[in-house]
Amino acid sequence: MRVAILAHEKFPDRAKTALGVLRYADHDVVAVLDRDAAGRRVADFVSDVQDAPIVADTAALDPDAADALLVGIAPIGGGFDETWRDDVRTALEYGWDVVSGLHYFLGEDEEFARLAAEHGCELRDVRNPPDDLTVADGVAGAVDAEVILTVGTDCSVGKMTTTMELARAARAAGRDAAVIPTGQTGILIEGWGTPIDRVVGDFTAGAVEELITEKGDDHDYLFVEGQGSIVHPAYSPVTLGILHGSMADELVLCHEAGRETIHGYESFALPSIPTYVDLYESIAAPVAESEVVAGTINTAGLEDDAAHTAVEEYADALGAPATDVLRFGTDDVLEALG
Amino acid sequence: MRVAILAHEKFPDRAKTALGVLRYADHDVVAVLDRDAAGRRVADFVSDVQDAPIVADTAALDPDAADALLVGIAPIGGGFDETWRDDVRTALEYGWDVVSGLHYFLGEDEEFARLAAEHGCELRDVRNPPDDLTVADGVAGAVDAEVILTVGTDCSVGKMTTTMELARAARAAGRDAAVIPTGQTGILIEGWGTPIDRVVGDFTAGAVEELITEKGDDHDYLFVEGQGSIVHPAYSPVTLGILHGSMADELVLCHEAGRETIHGYESFALPSIPTYVDLYESIAAPVAESEVVAGTINTAGLEDDAAHTAVEEYADALGAPATDVLRFGTDDVLEALG
Repeated sequence: MRVAILAHEKFPDRAKTALGVLRYADHDVVAVLDRDAAGRRVADFVSDVQDAPIVADTAALDPDAADALLVGIAPIGGGFDETWRDDVRTALEYGWDVVSGLHYFLGEDEEFARLAAEHGCELRDVRNPPDDLTVADGVAGAVDAEVILTVGTDCSVGKMTTTMELARAARAAGRDAAVIPTGQTGILIEGWGTPIDRVVGDFTAGAVEELITEKGDDHDYLFVEGQGSIVHPAYSPVTLGILHGSMADELVLCHEAGRETIHGYESFALPSIPTYVDLYESIAAPVAESEVVAGTINTAGLEDDAAHTAVEEYADALGAPATDVLRFGTDDVLEALG
Repeated sequence: MRVAILAHEKFPDRAKTALGVLRYADHDVVAVLDRDAAGRRVADFVSDVQDAPIVADTAALDPDAADALLVGIAPIGGGFDETWRDDVRTALEYGWDVVSGLHYFLGEDEEFARLAAEHGCELRDVRNPPDDLTVADGVAGAVDAEVILTVGTDCSVGKMTTTMELARAARAAGRDAAVIPTGQTGILIEGWGTPIDRVVGDFTAGAVEELITEKGDDHDYLFVEGQGSIVHPAYSPVTLGILHGSMADELVLCHEAGRETIHGYESFALPSIPTYVDLYESIAAPVAESEVVAGTINTAGLEDDAAHTAVEEYADALGAPATDVLRFGTDDVLEALG
């Protein structure tokens, strides 16, 4: 699939979904839309992902250039930014599908729905969970695959990146590994999955269990994309639903170097790393014997020496192998997996 | 409000909502509908709640006898039992409102919606959460009231009953106490609240926070109705959302004597009571300093001597005062609250 990615005014640093798609998806990215960076290229900003031109709007692209427009950014609250309306409208007029992970469902927008019907294209709101979800049966632990879940000290510490890098490395090492996508970026990359944060509380664990049992007997490894953090004042229910619903065998604890408080909730201090290990393992234990076997730390803000030190200190605090997956690779962590 | 309560084939032992309304609501219950027990009275089965005749169907009642029909039972899955259709239809034809906590929304049933419109009455689906919920800000801890949350070793161990009994006893002792209803029974009794198990995961804690901040500066005590259990394979996300969203000062751990495995999930053993105390306090700690200060235990299945022993053993395991609220009152537990 050939896609253009909308990332206005946020590429690359605040465009997590756009970057994830550029880095991990099989899609051929024909352009990134960012009116602030138009005329430059992805490679001017990020070197380790596929390159593409950056343009100001959909109208700058040929109608035949792509098959779909992906919304690659998410404003706080997940609303639709009206300054994007022309881009979505033009894409639909070109006959492109539009894929979005926003809380605001494009399929419920009257103009977009009408245009999609007129031009025979599809509005895919990937944050809209299926209607037939139900409660967990507590059976995810029975699948053949080794289930590895990324958990975090906070949001945006590298759980999705760790999941994708470990799956890629496991495949490169000859293992049959699948990714279980639980959030909008993972779903956009993999082309399937359930946005667990949009599932009602009673069915959170059940929705995860369904993803695990669907794939669990067909692979050696399932790498489950975690969400949030068990100590997050707002998102902890999603985290716990994924932990209990997946009945993970192994946990990889993800962290960002230097982060000391919950992002956006600065009055809440992060506990110590050993406390996180205790919390995740002890709250998992009555449902599944999940063990923290490794850690990953995002050191993007540090110089090389400081990054090495941060990884070493993090591994010491964990009592387990650790790495920065983008900077230092995944060998040590992959070896720690069962 | 004068109400009839539908509880076909389940009164009293499997009609938790009906019993809760009979015991705690201000409503005048004019009849219970149970076709298996028609002709008998509530007092033939349960002595410590308001009495009412039991009838076979709505048609056995006078149109002027009541203002509303309450659905007082919930089948597994929360569906609508088609054998109840005549009762709901007749109630609407009488001009009664119909109040339901089922997952199946009566307001979306074509026949019921049409009848309600024709007869000028209301279909109230209390399990339908408001549309304008959002993420928690982590501010519930700032309210003036002491926030007391009931937590459980499992589902159906007495959290709602404990909440209601403690609030009633606190009021009798001259304190200004409010109940924060988080589930269908509490909402039917109190006439307001949010069904937290029907809220999407991202907003679970936020929905609880909104309930707390709405009432928190107007009372001495808020008694928050807990849900599920932190170790439940399916419902733990709801439990954690209420724990973190309420930022409770004090926790009351509820248990049923003799229960050893999760109800309906018998391959999952309950951890020890001290383990529950550790789990609830340690997972709360990064968000709020919530402390287990007391416990309640349902001893309904035991003789008096065994019940006393069960309460004593439970208090010892907790390291805190305990009681069976219906059997032995609330004095010791109320005294333990700050």
